[in-house]
Amino acid sequence: MQITYEPIGIITSPHKQMEGIPIQSRGATGIRGSITIYPPFLEGLQDLEGFSHLILIYHFHLSEGYELQPTPFLDTKPHGVFATRAPRRPNPIGFSIVRLIRIREHVLEIENVDILDGTPLLDIKPYVPQFDIVGVERSGWLENKGENIGEIRSDRRFQSKKD
Amino acid sequence: MQITYEPIGIITSPHKQMEGIPIQSRGATGIRGSITIYPPFLEGLQDLEGFSHLILIYHFHLSEGYELQPTPFLDTKPHGVFATRAPRRPNPIGFSIVRLIRIREHVLEIENVDILDGTPLLDIKPYVPQFDIVGVERSGWLENKGENIGEIRSDRRFQSKKD
Repeated sequence: MQITYEPIGIITSPHKQMEGIPIQSRGATGIRGSITIYPPFLEGLQDLEGFSHLILIYHFHLSEGYELQPTPFLDTKPHGVFATRAPRRPNPIGFSIVRLIRIREHVLEIENVDILDGTPLLDIKPYVPQFDIVGVERSGWLENKGENIGEIRSDRRFQSKKD
Repeated sequence: MQITYEPIGIITSPHKQMEGIPIQSRGATGIRGSITIYPPFLEGLQDLEGFSHLILIYHFHLSEGYELQPTPFLDTKPHGVFATRAPRRPNPIGFSIVRLIRIREHVLEIENVDILDGTPLLDIKPYVPQFDIVGVERSGWLENKGENIGEIRSDRRFQSKKD
């Protein structure tokens, strides 16, 4: 079974290569970028500006192949890929929560951007505290990790040959 | 540009049709289901059981076409589709946060399931409080909505002809 999507827009950011990107939006505080929405989808932006934060679902376009047990940036040991946010996944789908600054026609100005420049955007959903803030009992190998996330950057480990 | 994915597994749930499904995981507290992961991806589950909550990214397989300004279940007025969680989207990608009860070989038992039975699963990511809990300034038309979410169910409005 094959599932086919087409981008609804494209993400522009200061991150021009896979090396040196902040880890998660949390590590990208204040870094600005933008989204250009393609004309057929413009009407879908109605009322979006009411939300301060957006969930972006996008395609890791430079990711090639996948590794089932990668060593993620925040650890020195391998973990199952589904227990990580690593980009080389069986379906290279990225997920980020960004802050929406403003919308000008077909351009969304965003902040806290941990996404590569030129990334094809698949979907936008509003980030809604009553749906998306969940109390957890445990957070596995990531427990107590990421306190210094603002200082960590990606390295070449998930680099594709094209990049 | 076309982007093609293949399911990594399939979701089983008590929700057999699009009508009567709880709204968001938050409205589905205690409802159980399971995920069957396909054999090529089993190694990717390593260490996942350490996390109590998972982000599921899946394909709304019964959704046909899309509406750019639907009237969502939680309101009586239309909104831009990207400001809603409605299933009939340009790319019908679903996103739910579920509780992981246990993993037995290739089967994940999950709870708080607002997903249709037979849904193809595209990706699993760990829900990580330090990445995924974000303080918002505003949440648009959903502000103060959803307090009675446990009592609301989907109706036929996003029903496809096949369903």
